Amino acid sequence: MPAPVTAFSITRVGAGEQREVSDLLVTEEPLEIRLGHGPLESRREMRLSVTMRTPGQDDELALGFLYTEGIITDVAQVLRVEACEQVKEEERGNVVRAELHPGVELDPQRWQRNFYTTSSCGVCGKTSIEAVQAQCTRPLRPFGAVDPAVLTQLPERMRKAQTVFRRTGGIHAAALFDREGNLLLLREDVGRHNAVDKVIGAALRGQLPTADCQLLVSGRAGFELVQKCIVAGIPLMAAVGMPTSLAVQMARQAGLTLIGFLRGDRFNVYADPATADRPGT
Amino acid sequence: MPAPVTAFSITRVGAGEQREVSDLLVTEEPLEIRLGHGPLESRREMRLSVTMRTPGQDDELALGFLYTEGIITDVAQVLRVEACEQVKEEERGNVVRAELHPGVELDPQRWQRNFYTTSSCGVCGKTSIEAVQAQCTRPLRPFGAVDPAVLTQLPERMRKAQTVFRRTGGIHAAALFDREGNLLLLREDVGRHNAVDKVIGAALRGQLPTADCQLLVSGRAGFELVQKCIVAGIPLMAAVGMPTSLAVQMARQAGLTLIGFLRGDRFNVYADPATADRPGT
Repeated sequence: MPAPVTAFSITRVGAGEQREVSDLLVTEEPLEIRLGHGPLESRREMRLSVTMRTPGQDDELALGFLYTEGIITDVAQVLRVEACEQVKEEERGNVVRAELHPGVELDPQRWQRNFYTTSSCGVCGKTSIEAVQAQCTRPLRPFGAVDPAVLTQLPERMRKAQTVFRRTGGIHAAALFDREGNLLLLREDVGRHNAVDKVIGAALRGQLPTADCQLLVSGRAGFELVQKCIVAGIPLMAAVGMPTSLAVQMARQAGLTLIGFLRGDRFNVYADPATADRPGT
Repeated sequence: MPAPVTAFSITRVGAGEQREVSDLLVTEEPLEIRLGHGPLESRREMRLSVTMRTPGQDDELALGFLYTEGIITDVAQVLRVEACEQVKEEERGNVVRAELHPGVELDPQRWQRNFYTTSSCGVCGKTSIEAVQAQCTRPLRPFGAVDPAVLTQLPERMRKAQTVFRRTGGIHAAALFDREGNLLLLREDVGRHNAVDKVIGAALRGQLPTADCQLLVSGRAGFELVQKCIVAGIPLMAAVGMPTSLAVQMARQAGLTLIGFLRGDRFNVYADPATADRPGT
């Protein structure tokens, strides 16, 4: 498998001079996720998705993706996720296959929404939100009161644990913390949706109590990240950057506590089920 | 059509106090791109793609997307792009249809790579790069020598023109400049690939000489952005953030000048056809 960072010789320009230096960049390579399904004696294979990702924890990425996209509703529906060995030499390490339990029936109608090219559920914010809600097998349990003293510690704890960021200066991260702000899981990836899928995949496999956790993301909080958080049953999501309109609307409807611009001792609360019915929202 | 920003009532927390304020967030809504194709007397329609975008310049977004994804190879192949009126009330403004010239034949093999869920061209960096190169109808004309005095002016010029960023503090941008650093086009979007597609769509429609231009993006330079730049024939791409490994590999093979970490009077040159054969790359 390719390494998460790759060395390049580059030219650094500044202050009137330039020099050749060696630099580490975040590795980006395609990952294909395949699905083995149907009876064990006559397995069928489906090519599900290709995503540009940073190599590493590909099995968690696949598991998180299957779950947050609604292809599985329980981690026990996946027998195993393995790197495919029977691929061309140059593809080795870039193809994984998830084996579904023979009893799992695929329902393409349910999961075409996001990564398929056609929408079966209408093209507007309202139906996008409804599609996510239909995907949730149980409602979110509200996080409850936010403790600023805990919340404002999270970004620094995540940064300290980010090994690839420290080496490159340019990679997204997602981290899962318990209610007290203890770091449970951290994953880095060139794609922020991949970082979130890796965290969720790892949490599912480790049977972590996601309903008692909070998720921090390094960038902005768009609709798709909020959707993944909700489907995974995590009741609080915080972002170092800003949320989008649809992310806030989704969070408010689902009862997710959504924090943005979490920097230093400041943050904004964009959604909080405790204050859901106030005017002007 | 929804506005590019949406007002929300939020809670701002900091320095030991909290207050309710009104805040503007970047609007995020799905856009469906449909394709009208075939003989004029018996048009067929294909639902091509759904992307989460910030409303505005949807026609340019569609045009840029069709071009950079290889569905069209010349802007003259599109008769027009229009908002679909015959949709459900709540979808209005979120569906556009591009009418292809009746003589244009669709070749699904060519453009399934990126936004389809299966890859027909192998899953590795090398084949990803080859697929983009196969898509380019003509090679890039090298940009030539980079002038630091021009280049370091670009981020400030882009920021000054960013109206949505000024109001929200959180949106991506892409800007096209001529060789002397004059701003030709600026587009903002919640998705950075959309911002680039909007700029390219506008440049194509305005018949701007992309071969004599340079493109600046507000975030990082991933593979897909570099790919769009190359397909559009723009010989220099600069990013405020960092490029990925695959973006640099693609740029070096295609003869694109790729600049990253463009901040203040400093920047890094990751790819430059003038120094293509140096060791250690």
